[in-house]
Parts: sequence; structure tokens; C-alpha cells
Amino acid sequence: MEPKLQRLLETIRRLLRRGATQNISRLLGKIHPADIAHLYRYLDPKEQQELFNLIREPEVAGEVLAELDHAFSARLLEQLTGVQISIILQNMPYDDAADIVQNLPEDLAAEVLNLMKDEDSEEIEGLLQYEEDSAGGIMSTEIFSLREDLTVKEAIGSIQKADDVEMVFYLYVTDEHNHLVGVLSLRQLLTVSPATVLRDVMIRDVISVRTDMDQEEVARVVEKYNILAVPVVDESNKLMGLITVDDVIDVIREEATEDIYKMAGANEEELLLGNQAFKIARLRLPWLITNLFGGVATGYLMWLFKVTIKDVIALISFIPVITGMGGNVGGQSATIVVRGFATGKIDMTTLRKVLFKEMRVGMIMGVVCGLTVGLVAWGWHHNPYLGMVVGLAMTVAMSVAATMGVLAPTFFKKIGVDPAIAATPFVQTANDITGILIYFATATMFIQYLK
Amino acid sequence: MEPKLQRLLETIRRLLRRGATQNISRLLGKIHPADIAHLYRYLDPKEQQELFNLIREPEVAGEVLAELDHAFSARLLEQLTGVQISIILQNMPYDDAADIVQNLPEDLAAEVLNLMKDEDSEEIEGLLQYEEDSAGGIMSTEIFSLREDLTVKEAIGSIQKADDVEMVFYLYVTDEHNHLVGVLSLRQLLTVSPATVLRDVMIRDVISVRTDMDQEEVARVVEKYNILAVPVVDESNKLMGLITVDDVIDVIREEATEDIYKMAGANEEELLLGNQAFKIARLRLPWLITNLFGGVATGYLMWLFKVTIKDVIALISFIPVITGMGGNVGGQSATIVVRGFATGKIDMTTLRKVLFKEMRVGMIMGVVCGLTVGLVAWGWHHNPYLGMVVGLAMTVAMSVAATMGVLAPTFFKKIGVDPAIAATPFVQTANDITGILIYFATATMFIQYLK
Repeated sequence: MEPKLQRLLETIRRLLRRGATQNISRLLGKIHPADIAHLYRYLDPKEQQELFNLIREPEVAGEVLAELDHAFSARLLEQLTGVQISIILQNMPYDDAADIVQNLPEDLAAEVLNLMKDEDSEEIEGLLQYEEDSAGGIMSTEIFSLREDLTVKEAIGSIQKADDVEMVFYLYVTDEHNHLVGVLSLRQLLTVSPATVLRDVMIRDVISVRTDMDQEEVARVVEKYNILAVPVVDESNKLMGLITVDDVIDVIREEATEDIYKMAGANEEELLLGNQAFKIARLRLPWLITNLFGGVATGYLMWLFKVTIKDVIALISFIPVITGMGGNVGGQSATIVVRGFATGKIDMTTLRKVLFKEMRVGMIMGVVCGLTVGLVAWGWHHNPYLGMVVGLAMTVAMSVAATMGVLAPTFFKKIGVDPAIAATPFVQTANDITGILIYFATATMFIQYLK
Repeated sequence: MEPKLQRLLETIRRLLRRGATQNISRLLGKIHPADIAHLYRYLDPKEQQELFNLIREPEVAGEVLAELDHAFSARLLEQLTGVQISIILQNMPYDDAADIVQNLPEDLAAEVLNLMKDEDSEEIEGLLQYEEDSAGGIMSTEIFSLREDLTVKEAIGSIQKADDVEMVFYLYVTDEHNHLVGVLSLRQLLTVSPATVLRDVMIRDVISVRTDMDQEEVARVVEKYNILAVPVVDESNKLMGLITVDDVIDVIREEATEDIYKMAGANEEELLLGNQAFKIARLRLPWLITNLFGGVATGYLMWLFKVTIKDVIALISFIPVITGMGGNVGGQSATIVVRGFATGKIDMTTLRKVLFKEMRVGMIMGVVCGLTVGLVAWGWHHNPYLGMVVGLAMTVAMSVAATMGVLAPTFFKKIGVDPAIAATPFVQTANDITGILIYFATATMFIQYLK
């Protein structure tokens, strides 16, 4: 935490305790809204609500809300009256306002929309039609565009008059039916003669996305072409909105966090639950219970080999290392494939290469780890055959695990199940089972040398 | 893969096989450089080099290289003569050129810098001074700034004359010593009278970063304030360069991939190694071998309980589930903490809350899973005491695992070791060991009821 913020936090806490509401309001007027939002991480729920109620200007309140999670923002607003809420939301960009309205209780949302100016509520209701994770769901509709038959002079005139539009740096050009036909930079306008018609100077090859494109896909387009904003069009190429790169950054962060959480069987919705342990546990349990039955299945397999184990009790010393290493290697391969799918670096065309690479890598690592653990087993239990059995089982188990690590997420992707969440329990259980099978099958085969 | 790219790929492959170099060159002139770079994922090394050599315009070659990984770009260039390389690099932004020069063999780098215009090589050598992961290392130095004593009219004049600068949308204002003193948007310039002096209209409160700031920190600043670019200053506030949000996106993606890979014990450098299985295996092995010895240690512990196991062989059926579930729960908590550290959502101030939350969550999940597996054990082996022992051990092991999952990454962060890489093997081994200890200690205690 930065020292500046630390001091601010302490001041605000002190003032809250003293009930010095006037001073807090004055202080909040002087802080960047992003910094106010940042402080929310460190406040408890009561302080969060109190602080929010003390923000005087609706613009600042709106900016703070836009920085916070939308579900959380909705909860902060619920404490206010419908009129207050509608004023704050009308001071926010429509896309953020729509996301918050979506998270309000239905009655309250309807009331708030009713209280707004028709113009505002219509825009917001329009945005509510789109899927939350689609280009339409994250676009801003306050977009500045110019007709292609304007002259440069007229264009500059309308830029001077325009206000309240999201940062203007690309100027989108449309035809008379509002179809997107070109793009210009503001700087370009300044470098041609004032009488030029936009149609003659604009760049016709505009990169755009459709309203129904998935937000991850949008992020990839923006990233690939290194653009600062991408216009959003409907199926007939009508200009509907704009997605700026700061929204794209949020998408990239969110999706990365989501994938990381999912691979561990956690859930990014937890972030909204604060310290509600029961709700968090409920989110994580289905994944854990799946793993639990995988573990029981592995145990059942071991039980089938109980005679072998009773005969050669030394075999138990290598159960954890064989199942553990299979899980690790499988996890590595699965991670590479899942992340590759997410970033677009791996697709079905390049998958075969990845599979063969991971198989080779798994085999090489399997030989190294097999030799290592084999020598350990030989030295420890003074039996070269035990070393051989353990080493061989480890090598085979690791090679199989690497293969499985590629195949399982691919399979889940093909059948339309998110590989990030399904891969781990499946890979782990499959690897435990094959590891144990290979280990005890080899051991049973060589049983006379092990006793 | 998009159908358009798919067709392009097939065409290029066909033309390469036919040796129709003329046609390829012509085709490459018509494709967006980002698309050419995209094709590289699907080509084999020989095709990659051939295709690169067929790009005629040095600008296009430069743009393609800027989209590819820098180490990979350097390898593509190595095949050319020093003169050719220097021409291409001089057609790229200095920051990308510097990153590539850094990856060239030392002799070749020196030769190339020698062949460049002094102006260019000085800029590049200046950039080479900065750490690769710092603001200085990723900033672009082609920055457009205006003196504070200019009038708006003069400012617009110099914008019209300027070319070859990175997208202009924020105009940075400096004093006579090149200190950053303000910022303006291009649109603002158009809305005030031409005679106004910049000093009187600029915004004085500019968000900037220092050249030595870590790139992750830079990403967080840009993200927090939703800005499209951030100026970079030296310790005396002199304007040195600019970081645009598209560079920030690369940083965020890279860091997320790096963390995801590290947590699985893989390495993001693998991405540069293509299919070189031996080198990849060497990168992953140290982490695996650490885990291997963790597994052997767990096995040694089990060996100590061999009498108990021989007495009650049914106990073996629950070894995989107890160690596995501890690892899973510990992994969940560790993932949340490691990701929280990375995104800045968790810091030492909020850690205590996270710890208590994870402990409560772990306990709740431990009770649920303990009951489940306890009932399974009872039903399977027809012994309620076995059910009790297994269930109890599971509950305790999972609670401990969740606690460990928070403490281990915190400990590693405190002593300056990357928690992403260190947490997993440590958490896993610690959990296996405590799981086994708790399980067999409970079992030994109740041994007379289990037989």
C-alpha cells in the first residue's frame, strides 16, 4: 500500500469514528475517485457504506462506482432512495450504469429507470438487451461520429461543440444510414485543407467488432491490432458503440483471474462475497467433492492390491511420490494447453504439435525422475528390483500423465465444457489411477524379487 | 482460426512449396502486418524464415517483428546481413528495436548499431540502459511534447508539422528544461482561442511514472486511472518517454501467463523454445525434483507407520483421498493469495482477513468432505470407527491445508522469493505430510477399534 493512501485511510477512519462527516465530505471532494475506490479494499462493510453516503457530488459518486465491482456498487446504492440512485446513475457512462442496474433488485431497478429522463433510461434499457460478456454488453454508446459528406471545417466545428463523449481520438465516419464507412484521426483533420470532404481523406479499412462478439474475442482483436478503441457495429454494419482499451484491460485481467481460479477449483465470484465463508465454501465444494470421489476410486484400486502390499510393505513408501508426480506433470501440460486456448496461442490446428511436444517432454522428465526415485528406492530398501519397479512405474506414469494433460482439456473443449475447470480433477484422478495401476501391476509382476 | 487466415495460410504454404516468391511478396504487401505475425504460429521454422525474407518493405518487416516475440525476431534477423538488419530496425519504434538488439549476438548487435545513423543508434543505446522490465525498458521515446509558453495556434502548427510520433492524443507540456508540467487533450486545443498560452489551459495534475518503476506497477497505474498512455519521467521529472496502453496490455497478459505457468512449475520461457523438448524438460525439472523429494519424505512417514498399516490394511484405501484433498484445498487458498498479490487486491494490510476467511472456509469444507468420506469408509469397510478416523483426519487435514495455503505464499513473499513458484511444492508437501501424520496418528490412537 502506498504511504499516501495509507495516511488517507487512517485519516478517514479517524474522522469516521469521530463522526466528522463535514470534514470527510470535504476531503472526498479532493481525492481522485480511483483512489477513493482503492480505499474500499481496506474498509469494513459499515465503513464502506458510510463513506459512500458522504460523497457529495453525484459525478464523483458515479466515478467511484464505475471503478468498483458492479454487483458491489449495486449493493452500496440499495441503501439510497430511488431518486438519489437515478441521479447518480445519470451521471455515469451508460455502460457502467446499465451494468449496475442489472445488479439491482428488480423492483428497484424498474423504479430507478422510471425516474430517469427518457433519453437516459432508453439508452440503458437498450444496453440491457446485450449479453453481459458480449461486445454490446461492455461498449459505451456515447460515441462521437461524423457523416462522410461533411467537410473538414464542419467536422472540426462539431468536435468543438461536442461534449460528454468518451475520449475522442479516432473519429468514426458514417454514411447517411449510420453505417460505419471509415475512420480518421483527429490529427489527420488538422493536416488537410478545411474544404476537403471526409469521404476523400478517411481510411476505409476500419477494424470493427459485432455487438454479439464475445468480450474475450474483442480483447484479442484490440490486442492484435494495437488499437486504442474499436467501434462496435450491428449485423448490418450500423455503428452502435465503442469499446476503449481500458475496458479491454479489465476483460483481460478478469479472464486471467477467472482461469487461474477455475484451475484451482476456486471461483472468481468469491471476490464479491468478502468474508462470507459458507457461501465461498459452497462455491468450491462441488469441485472438491468430484476430486474426493476420484481419490476414493484410487483408494479402491489400492485396496485391490492389498495382498501385494501386505507381502511387500515397502511398496507403500512410494505411493505418494508416484501419484503426486503424475499429478504435477499432468498439471503442467494441462496448464499449458488451457492457457494456450485462453490466449489463442494454441488451437486445434497446432494441437498435434503441442501433444507430441508434451509427450516427449513428459518422457524425458519421466526418465530423469524415474532414475532418481529408483536410486532412492534401491538405496533405502537395499533392493535393486524395488528400485527398478519404482523407477519404471514413475517413468511410465509421468509419460502417460503428460499425454493426459493435453488430451483432457482438449476433450472438454471439444464437447463444450470449460477446460479450465474440468481439466484438473479429471487429469488428477486419471493420473492417480494410472499411476497406481502401473505401479502395482509392475510390482505384482516382479513380486518374487521384491520379497 | 478464422477462415480468412486459414485460407491465407494455405495459399502461402502452396506458394512457398512452388517457390513462387514473386507472388508471395506481392501478397505480403497487401496483408496487415499483425496478420502476417499471426500466421507465424502455424508455420514451421523453415517456412517462417522463408516468409520473412520475402517481405519487401522494411516498414512491414519492422511491424511484423514488433508483433512477434523479441527473442524470436532476433533469430529471424540473424540470417540477414548487418546492413539489412540496420535498415529494418531503423524502420521500427526505438523501444522495439532496442528489445531486439538486446537479443542479437553481441558482435552482430555492435555491428548493426555501428551501421545505423548516429541519431538512431544513440536513442537505442539510451534505451538499452534500462532494465527490461522497468518503465524505461518498455517506454517509447518518440514522444511529442509542447513547451508551456507556446500559444494554442503555435501548438496546432507544430502538431501539423510533426510526423512519425506515436499516436498523439494526450499532449504533454514541458517547461524550458524539459520538465513535465502539464497535459492537454488535442480536443481541448480546438475549443479555446488560438491566442491562449498553453500554460493557462493545461491540466497541471499529470499522472506519470518513473523510468525505474516496475512494469507491473506501471500496468496497475494505467489500469487504476483508466488512462490511454502514461508519460515516463526521470528522477528530476524530465520527460523521457511514453508508455501507451497497448504495451500495458502485453505486460498484463505476460504477467498473467507467467504466474499461471509458475504455479504449475512450468516456465514462460518455454514459449520461445517451440518444440525443443530437452530444453523445456530442463526448465521444468528443478521444480519437479523438489516435489519428488517432498513425495519421498511423505513416503518415509508412511513407512514409519508400517506396523499400523499391516495391522489394518483397510487404512491404505484412504491415503490418496487424504493427501489429494489436502493438496487441493491448500492449492485453492494459495492460488487466491498468489493471484491477490499479483493484482494488488491482497497486501499485507488485508492479509489477516484473508487468512481467517480461508481458515473458516477450509474448516467448513473439511467438515463436509470429512463427513462424506467418513460415511463412505463406514459403508465400505463396515466399521464406524474407521469412518470416524478417516473423517476426522480429513477435516483436520483440510483445515490445516487452507491455513498453510495462505501462510506459505505470504512467507515466501516476505523473504523475497516469488510466491507463485515456491508456494505449490511447499504447500503440497507440507499438506501431504500433515495429512499423513494426522491420519495415521489418529488411526494408531484408535487401533484397537479398527482391527
